[in-house]
Amino acid sequence: MSSPEIRVFPSEYLREFSTRVFMHFGVPKNDARIAADVLAVADLRGIDSHGVARLHTYFEMLTLGRINPRCKPRIVRETLSTATVDGDNGLGLVVGPWANTVAMDKAEEAGSGWVSVRHTNHYGIAGYYPLEALKRDLIGWAMTNTTKLVAPLWGAERMLGTNPIAIAFPGKDEPALVIDLATCAAAYGKIEIAKRHGTPIPEGWAIDRDGRATTDPNAMIDGGAILPLGSDRERGGHKGYSLALMVDVLSAVLSGANWGPFTPPFALRQEIPKRSVGQGIGHFFGALRIDGFIDPDEFKRQIDDLVRTFRATRPAPGTSGPLLPGDPEREAEVQRRRDGIPLVLPVIDELRDIAKQTGVPFD
Amino acid sequence: MSSPEIRVFPSEYLREFSTRVFMHFGVPKNDARIAADVLAVADLRGIDSHGVARLHTYFEMLTLGRINPRCKPRIVRETLSTATVDGDNGLGLVVGPWANTVAMDKAEEAGSGWVSVRHTNHYGIAGYYPLEALKRDLIGWAMTNTTKLVAPLWGAERMLGTNPIAIAFPGKDEPALVIDLATCAAAYGKIEIAKRHGTPIPEGWAIDRDGRATTDPNAMIDGGAILPLGSDRERGGHKGYSLALMVDVLSAVLSGANWGPFTPPFALRQEIPKRSVGQGIGHFFGALRIDGFIDPDEFKRQIDDLVRTFRATRPAPGTSGPLLPGDPEREAEVQRRRDGIPLVLPVIDELRDIAKQTGVPFD
Repeated sequence: MSSPEIRVFPSEYLREFSTRVFMHFGVPKNDARIAADVLAVADLRGIDSHGVARLHTYFEMLTLGRINPRCKPRIVRETLSTATVDGDNGLGLVVGPWANTVAMDKAEEAGSGWVSVRHTNHYGIAGYYPLEALKRDLIGWAMTNTTKLVAPLWGAERMLGTNPIAIAFPGKDEPALVIDLATCAAAYGKIEIAKRHGTPIPEGWAIDRDGRATTDPNAMIDGGAILPLGSDRERGGHKGYSLALMVDVLSAVLSGANWGPFTPPFALRQEIPKRSVGQGIGHFFGALRIDGFIDPDEFKRQIDDLVRTFRATRPAPGTSGPLLPGDPEREAEVQRRRDGIPLVLPVIDELRDIAKQTGVPFD
Repeated sequence: MSSPEIRVFPSEYLREFSTRVFMHFGVPKNDARIAADVLAVADLRGIDSHGVARLHTYFEMLTLGRINPRCKPRIVRETLSTATVDGDNGLGLVVGPWANTVAMDKAEEAGSGWVSVRHTNHYGIAGYYPLEALKRDLIGWAMTNTTKLVAPLWGAERMLGTNPIAIAFPGKDEPALVIDLATCAAAYGKIEIAKRHGTPIPEGWAIDRDGRATTDPNAMIDGGAILPLGSDRERGGHKGYSLALMVDVLSAVLSGANWGPFTPPFALRQEIPKRSVGQGIGHFFGALRIDGFIDPDEFKRQIDDLVRTFRATRPAPGTSGPLLPGDPEREAEVQRRRDGIPLVLPVIDELRDIAKQTGVPFD
């Protein structure tokens, strides 16, 4: 597994390191463990961009006092099946799991639970939250808005985040369907990789600073924008744009957070929005009790049937047929639980920098 | 407005005709009015494919006894905020509004309401349902599964419907955001138009019967499939596929309806699925009380601000800038309320055929 460019670490080692880094800033032990768990799940599931590769940014935000390490999230308004949570400017990795638990508790009481969250920060992978719901035999949803990076269809500038939607459905003998998708055409990380390699990006991913379609990664990075899912009008770019707006409204307008281009940045080098229209960023969580609709065993048997039916789809030429949502992440998890988490050198250097500045040992 | 190819009819005239046609088959007057209203709203909003242009298909299904004209939808399972409805094989245009009302009533009681529906049929435009929720100051959602027409990414055959998602958010002085999107790359109607005109379809819309990308509309229609939103792997086709699966599970697996390739067809000439895995097709409705989260007036002022902010986006070259979801339909409605509904001759001929066979006058 190891190469000069990559070193492999046991998941538990990285989880412990993250926990201690959070605790160094005064995050209570239990909160620190939860936050580290969100990062560890991303690394285990192969979503490298959202695991310990992000720890240095959390570290910077905590160092500068821009995130409250001892946040006390609280419900500021509620009904039997809904709530608004104020995250007290805490780590999204702490506020998110707390608010998701409120949604799940409400679902167990009232059949469903829906929680909109303001005054919070980046919450890790959206898929973490419906995975937690699966542990309680619930259907979980999660959305969040994020810093502007995506243009609305026919716009020439960044107005929306990558605004993901995640939801999961349990099977009986087959694995759960785990959906976790950003509502834009491509991930920013892929554009950064193309820049590093000096290769063009596919058509339909991005526009330049003048709003023209581009295949030059530099043109997107230098003041351009990512396109919404669907890319252009002909292929449904208005649909991806609409989904991104939906996520923005449910997460941020409904909670009283900042929306659209005013969503505060996560990374330090990104520009601060011109206006503030709310508090922090916003999340939206949902949970549905399966037995509020149907016998859960029957539901899971049908999901198994559906999974097998879709696996038996006639394959398109040059492929081995459709995957089910969650397949790649589950395969990564099996391998990484066994072999460990591969980290590239720049990430290792960042973790060493954190170690140096906090005194938490790493290596 | 009129031309040899098009005639214009007042919306009320078409609504009255549809009502009487439904009543001819024994649909109770109130149900017939509601069903006609769903069609009328589609025509008013410029969604011609889902208005009276579909009446002949409903007529055929009723003539053949494949839809129950005197359906009695009922709740078969419920919690405070959720329910499963059995549509008694009624018109989706009757069952849909009934189940949507259950969701809205539950929202008013419990903060939110979520209803999955089985044993139902085609319910018209998804956007109708959140528009009804706006009248009660609720955020409404609607989804439905439909007959197979779309391939999963890397599949070579039709496995999923166009599975739409609709949701609407009210503004204060600005119009509501009304999102209504199919989770596939393009509408089947557009492929039919290209076939009629003998023109190619854009790349990214479709595959042929062997699963190969095609720009030939005939190749799609003759045993091929539409691609999911995002089209291919590079541009996020797995995302559109995942969204279509999400709609399928919430609408059909959760309710006990037929899902995926087993969803029964709406039009008569489409093939009957090999297996039945539930009853009829499935819908999913949701409603959220805004004041369960935030002061509704504050919410609407923020939506106004968001609408104005997005309208002020710097336009992409060759465009006048981004639209907001619902703009084109609202403009169509203003014009059509004033000028009437333009119908093409083939649709008029179908309505005349219905008139001849039912004795309900039309012209």
